Amino acid sequence: MKILIINGPNLNFLGRRKEEIYGQMSLEEINQRLVEKAKALDMQVEFFQSNSEGEIIDRIQQAADVYDGLIINPGALTHYSYALRDALESLSVPVIEVHLSNIFAREDFRQKSVTAPVCAGVITGFGWRSYLAALEVFHQWVSQL
Amino acid sequence: MKILIINGPNLNFLGRRKEEIYGQMSLEEINQRLVEKAKALDMQVEFFQSNSEGEIIDRIQQAADVYDGLIINPGALTHYSYALRDALESLSVPVIEVHLSNIFAREDFRQKSVTAPVCAGVITGFGWRSYLAALEVFHQWVSQL
Amino acid sequence: MKILIINGPNLNFLGRRKEEIYGQMSLEEINQRLVEKAKALDMQVEFFQSNSEGEIIDRIQQAADVYDGLIINPGALTHYSYALRDALESLSVPVIEVHLSNIFAREDFRQKSVTAPVCAGVITGFGWRSYLAALEVFHQWVSQL
Amino acid sequence: MKILIINGPNLNFLGRRKEEIYGQMSLEEINQRLVEKAKALDMQVEFFQSNSEGEIIDRIQQAADVYDGLIINPGALTHYSYALRDALESLSVPVIEVHLSNIFAREDFRQKSVTAPVCAGVITGFGWRSYLAALEVFHQWVSQL
Amino acid sequence: MKILIINGPNLNFLGRRKEEIYGQMSLEEINQRLVEKAKALDMQVEFFQSNSEGEIIDRIQQAADVYDGLIINPGALTHYSYALRDALESLSVPVIEVHLSNIFAREDFRQKSVTAPVCAGVITGFGWRSYLAALEVFHQWVSQL
Amino acid sequence: MKILIINGPNLNFLGRRKEEIYGQMSLEEINQRLVEKAKALDMQVEFFQSNSEGEIIDRIQQAADVYDGLIINPGALTHYSYALRDALESLSVPVIEVHLSNIFAREDFRQKSVTAPVCAGVITGFGWRSYLAALEVFHQWVSQL
Amino acid sequence: MKILIINGPNLNFLGRRKEEIYGQMSLEEINQRLVEKAKALDMQVEFFQSNSEGEIIDRIQQAADVYDGLIINPGALTHYSYALRDALESLSVPVIEVHLSNIFAREDFRQKSVTAPVCAGVITGFGWRSYLAALEVFHQWVSQL
Amino acid sequence: MKILIINGPNLNFLGRRKEEIYGQMSLEEINQRLVEKAKALDMQVEFFQSNSEGEIIDRIQQAADVYDGLIINPGALTHYSYALRDALESLSVPVIEVHLSNIFAREDFRQKSVTAPVCAGVITGFGWRSYLAALEVFHQWVSQL
Amino acid sequence: MKILIINGPNLNFLGRRKEEIYGQMSLEEINQRLVEKAKALDMQVEFFQSNSEGEIIDRIQQAADVYDGLIINPGALTHYSYALRDALESLSVPVIEVHLSNIFAREDFRQKSVTAPVCAGVITGFGWRSYLAALEVFHQWVSQL
Amino acid sequence: MKILIINGPNLNFLGRRKEEIYGQMSLEEINQRLVEKAKALDMQVEFFQSNSEGEIIDRIQQAADVYDGLIINPGALTHYSYALRDALESLSVPVIEVHLSNIFAREDFRQKSVTAPVCAGVITGFGWRSYLAALEVFHQWVSQL
Amino acid sequence: MKILIINGPNLNFLGRRKEEIYGQMSLEEINQRLVEKAKALDMQVEFFQSNSEGEIIDRIQQAADVYDGLIINPGALTHYSYALRDALESLSVPVIEVHLSNIFAREDFRQKSVTAPVCAGVITGFGWRSYLAALEVFHQWVSQL
Amino acid sequence: MKILIINGPNLNFLGRRKEEIYGQMSLEEINQRLVEKAKALDMQVEFFQSNSEGEIIDRIQQAADVYDGLIINPGALTHYSYALRDALESLSVPVIEVHLSNIFAREDFRQKSVTAPVCAGVITGFGWRSYLAALEVFHQWVSQL
Repeated sequence: MKILIINGPNLNFLGRRKEEIYGQMSLEEINQRLVEKAKALDMQVEFFQSNSEGEIIDRIQQAADVYDGLIINPGALTHYSYALRDALESLSVPVIEVHLSNIFAREDFRQKSVTAPVCAGVITGFGWRSYLAALEVFHQWVSQL
Repeated sequence: MKILIINGPNLNFLGRRKEEIYGQMSLEEINQRLVEKAKALDMQVEFFQSNSEGEIIDRIQQAADVYDGLIINPGALTHYSYALRDALESLSVPVIEVHLSNIFAREDFRQKSVTAPVCAGVITGFGWRSYLAALEVFHQWVSQL
Repeated sequence: MKILIINGPNLNFLGRRKEEIYGQMSLEEINQRLVEKAKALDMQVEFFQSNSEGEIIDRIQQAADVYDGLIINPGALTHYSYALRDALESLSVPVIEVHLSNIFAREDFRQKSVTAPVCAGVITGFGWRSYLAALEVFHQWVSQL
Repeated sequence: MKILIINGPNLNFLGRRKEEIYGQMSLEEINQRLVEKAKALDMQVEFFQSNSEGEIIDRIQQAADVYDGLIINPGALTHYSYALRDALESLSVPVIEVHLSNIFAREDFRQKSVTAPVCAGVITGFGWRSYLAALEVFHQWVSQL
Repeated sequence: MKILIINGPNLNFLGRRKEEIYGQMSLEEINQRLVEKAKALDMQVEFFQSNSEGEIIDRIQQAADVYDGLIINPGALTHYSYALRDALESLSVPVIEVHLSNIFAREDFRQKSVTAPVCAGVITGFGWRSYLAALEVFHQWVSQL
Repeated sequence: MKILIINGPNLNFLGRRKEEIYGQMSLEEINQRLVEKAKALDMQVEFFQSNSEGEIIDRIQQAADVYDGLIINPGALTHYSYALRDALESLSVPVIEVHLSNIFAREDFRQKSVTAPVCAGVITGFGWRSYLAALEVFHQWVSQL
Repeated sequence: MKILIINGPNLNFLGRRKEEIYGQMSLEEINQRLVEKAKALDMQVEFFQSNSEGEIIDRIQQAADVYDGLIINPGALTHYSYALRDALESLSVPVIEVHLSNIFAREDFRQKSVTAPVCAGVITGFGWRSYLAALEVFHQWVSQL
Repeated sequence: MKILIINGPNLNFLGRRKEEIYGQMSLEEINQRLVEKAKALDMQVEFFQSNSEGEIIDRIQQAADVYDGLIINPGALTHYSYALRDALESLSVPVIEVHLSNIFAREDFRQKSVTAPVCAGVITGFGWRSYLAALEVFHQWVSQL
Repeated sequence: MKILIINGPNLNFLGRRKEEIYGQMSLEEINQRLVEKAKALDMQVEFFQSNSEGEIIDRIQQAADVYDGLIINPGALTHYSYALRDALESLSVPVIEVHLSNIFAREDFRQKSVTAPVCAGVITGFGWRSYLAALEVFHQWVSQL
Repeated sequence: MKILIINGPNLNFLGRRKEEIYGQMSLEEINQRLVEKAKALDMQVEFFQSNSEGEIIDRIQQAADVYDGLIINPGALTHYSYALRDALESLSVPVIEVHLSNIFAREDFRQKSVTAPVCAGVITGFGWRSYLAALEVFHQWVSQL
Repeated sequence: MKILIINGPNLNFLGRRKEEIYGQMSLEEINQRLVEKAKALDMQVEFFQSNSEGEIIDRIQQAADVYDGLIINPGALTHYSYALRDALESLSVPVIEVHLSNIFAREDFRQKSVTAPVCAGVITGFGWRSYLAALEVFHQWVSQL
Repeated sequence: MKILIINGPNLNFLGRRKEEIYGQMSLEEINQRLVEKAKALDMQVEFFQSNSEGEIIDRIQQAADVYDGLIINPGALTHYSYALRDALESLSVPVIEVHLSNIFAREDFRQKSVTAPVCAGVITGFGWRSYLAALEVFHQWVSQL
């Protein structure tokens, strides 16, 4: 099973920004943990990060026939990028949306996700463990657990 | 690690209601799987279901010093029970809110959670696997993963 | 044909509260008339009243395979109980929502029904005759009138 | 007892439009059943249909001293015709608003009735039987049932 | 100076409807007083009443080159008839909107006028004297008072 | 008959501000015309202008038993001064609210009047002639016209 | 191919009203051009204009089995006539909604179309050429272009 | 004078939850102070607490003819329980709503009280002294102070 | 303990305005009772009333270091005077907001208080006894009751 | 006449995404048809597609003095890209906005266009024929049709 | 160049109120710095502060022909005083609105300015330096910088 | 002191677009003036402009440890780019948001800034002098003025 993990704007700055909300770990450290977890679950993971909505949509389109699933943390694009939503909706494999912080416990504008309605589901609030739990869900699906 | 799993109104009717949304498995079957998963993770789980907001609050209060965490699927109470929110907020252990269906992809009123802001996080849209993923998150916390 | 008639919070106080709106008849007197009407139409009626949302949901679930239809006056739960809505939605037999007063002619919050969208229809504004008319509709369905 | 039954815009097209919502019966067939029912209840019914708000108001004004009650299905005028509302409000006999479909279960704009607040009550969702139930309510009033 | 006075839906029922709000005088009696007042001011008045939006628009179009001004009480059309608004806007002579009751002191929906923005001004709340005051304003304009 | 005419904030600047909307006449010139008109109608008028909400309320309270009626142009206080509204509401004599411009044809915030609901009526849009028409209405009331 | 072209309220006044928005051409001149264009495309066009919502609905109902398509400019009815919407929805042939001006660039109330959701599509902003483009679309459909 | 003091959901947890908002005193300690205060004022107080909306309504109905007044802190039910509102409205003795914290200074959802409109008044923000002040008001009423 | 009691616009008119809502007692009579009550509680009270927002703010600023607390009934300023709110917020001693009528049971605009969020608490609905209860609360604070 | 045709995010995926809404034709196939149509009308067309808002704005700016008009399908950017709107507004040649599906008949967020107000007009709902009709309109303008 | 600097309600309390937001400097100290700065720029400044909306409007009117520009910090009047807006709008010299704190980063009600639309511009968030920057802008205008 | 000045979408088109709003000066001319001003203040400025949200975020991230402050005119991104907001929020040096036109005096959507709450302050409405004033503020901070 091959999963693409996409991170949106400013997530390359993790560990340098609002640590009380997003934690101290850098994106590289998170990715490292995901690689280990994936190996343990006999899955493959690839990573993509960009600050540009357009590049993320390009990447999603290229992923269309290559991966068995997507994990995406769209960053702030979550709250207004209908273009990203359309890109995700065009995929035939399942997508899981994740967030480091609990978006329900933050500013009003962060409580609305325009991308979530076209995803299989959402995991929000567990820091880097949100990604881990998403991997776990993919693993369960595949294992018929 | 000892986890209490609470299910709100109508979840005892799982498998009998809107199967295209909630799936075919009964609550008992889900609980059985959770028991097995918990055993595998060396955790203990207990279950409580009620159709009554008052009874659920009573149960949460009794749980205050007994469990290491709560998993709750508040059912439709998610969308209006500020009393349930207050009860969850008074706990010192973490609470994970779960939903079978992806609440972001359903009716408008189901997209608002009044309980989520006082939970650690939310897992929504993976059917009974939402509960499983929540267990996994508790396990990660405990294992310092 | 066997019909369950459910009355929600405060309807046991009929005849003692805001008579200019709800009329002078007690719930027992209304039920008596419904028994007579049902007999005339060769139907059976049973009654349940509770001030507790949870008990009403319990009762609806027990009714699932026993009755040919439900008449429900959810009282003020009409306006916010999504849990009651879910319970009604899970039934396979038709439900008719009734109100004594014309909810369209009252306070703003009473003009919204969260339960009506999952009912077959609504009869509102005819005092205890709203229940009678609901019985009549069930009778018509059965008689293919 | 003499009742005027008014049908608003597009109801003359019944049986030719969105049958899954409005049913297969034509307005003439419904009227025929109402005549029979009225005869059985010892009542008289007359019918009026128009696609024009102005003509309906004219007809209501002429009805002022002639009938003992009105049954009206205002069609889409239900949702915006304050002029119709004023006309209904000026009558001294009771008016019952009926709808074929359950307006609470349809588009948002159909869930608001500007005419209902000046009617005695509303019966919605029982197809042509909504009219029948309205006749029944008039009969009960007259019979002191 | 020649003024056309237009009355919209239900105003032909004045004196028969909600007298505590609209007064006891019939439209004919009001018109009679306006004829007298007009004569005193050396003006001519003509009258038109209809319950039909379409007929009123027809009449306004015919009035385009015939009168020096219009006084209109659009009745309930005030609150939603953008078609009437467009008709009034196409006139080159001034229009005064009048209301018997003070629309600011009534139901919410009556406090919004979609026609007023294209009129010269509005006189509301003085019963039949609202029309009289409108005549007076026309007279002042003509007399350069 | 003795009428007090109150003008609110910035109306002392008439003729110096936005002439395309408010006209070229100064407040003094308008008052002069009102004096003449009042004499013609055998009425007495007194004037008060202030830029201060508090002073206007003081003046209204002093007027309580002295005048037969009030004409008020509250200026921008129209749109938010609930304190002015309370002061006007406490009077037992009728109050007419006037505006130079047609408030329905201007910015959104000017289309809402918080004072109008406690006045007898409103005359808006006729420049200084709005005051004249208000005098005329008082005269009609007194003359039983 | 036979197309009915319907124009709603005030469109018979084209060329006489707000020329900067609606242009200088009269409806007759537009129709003349449409006749020529239709001839060129080997189509037939018929015209109907009315200021009355009811008459327009009557005409649409009569058109049900006669034409291959409808072009409608509902004028201001666009923004509130749910009755017109219902009439259009009951047709089995395609309907194209057109507007002379770009409704997105005008007052707020003109930016909402209650009829557009039941049409095949909308062409707005090209003056009388909006009708021409609609004819062209019908021609393409028929020609399988 | 005999007063029933009702506390809603989670108030049995006082002293254990969000002490910076609700204070450190337990409900028992508050009740103890109220008993003392009541004795000093020559009044009798009884207490009821429940986490269940239904049980609270039951208790209010039983109280109907037994007490001279009610003091109620509905907890979070304040913000959505129209059923509780109906129960309170049916009482003929006065009800005073109290809150420990100042609901105006908290989350948006806590600033709306659906029960307050049917109470005599509200005392909010003085911790356990809110109850004391309510007792004082009852005492003043009785003493004709 | 020294308390300043401030009354806003129109409260000097008590006993002369809407007696069914505000009672028959004049402000002087209320103040007299407060003096007596204060004496009984061994407190000092001073009074200030003004119809001017500016004068009230001036008075609050002068009070900053002189009194141990404030009781304020801002009258209609309650609903919009953010300037008054800022003045109250700058005080270091506690402020209690009081209202004669129950603001929750009145017009919509009276249910919003912009000053309450910066007060210690609010007492509303008990007529002149609201002031008395506020004194009582101050007394409790001081007495450590 | 030289026209630039711009397609926004995800339109390069046509034929692969939600075919029931967007049709089965690929963007290349649509462009091919437009080339043919343009040739027939003696016009030139060029194409640009990008998933990036920034690149589209760059392209629009370069187009400023090169083309006689623009046809743009902004994809989901239609609903939120005020930056795109500003770019379009800065052009001196006319822009026509087109959509494949009827945006009035889809999700709420798709019914709002932030770019349409600065375009000459909009053609929506005719699949790839929307582009064709836009070409036709440009041709009419040029031909003085 | 002669500039009038107006400060609204509560700004005379600077240094005594919410220092974390408004800073520790008193209004006198700020004014002193402005005098120095003005001298350096060869400008003259005069100051006016009042807690009264009416007095501020009076002062603005007197300033009409005396100063070359105005700097105003309307304090909380910013958010609701349409009367102040009208006064500012009547001036022919430019007005700059300043705020000590960044109004975009504060409570919702502080993010709306009813006065800003009639000012030349706004400078917000730089403490007393906001005034300084405003002086600088006036200087640039005058120097044609 | 080293300042980065960022301009968002379409600002490279200054002098070519809506000159009555944005002025006639090109971005290069503005930058030239800023270089001169900076030199006079002994500061260094660098410039960056892009039409792409993603590139602007990239640039901001690179700026994190290089500059002492940022001046940003986000163009239309101001109104919806939460991704830009997050990028700005992650900086530890102060950011000043500037606008050429007074955003409070323009379309509704331009009056909301999603980036301003994370900036130190905002300067809006002074054309290219807004940038100059921002430089001035940075200078004051550094000079402890």
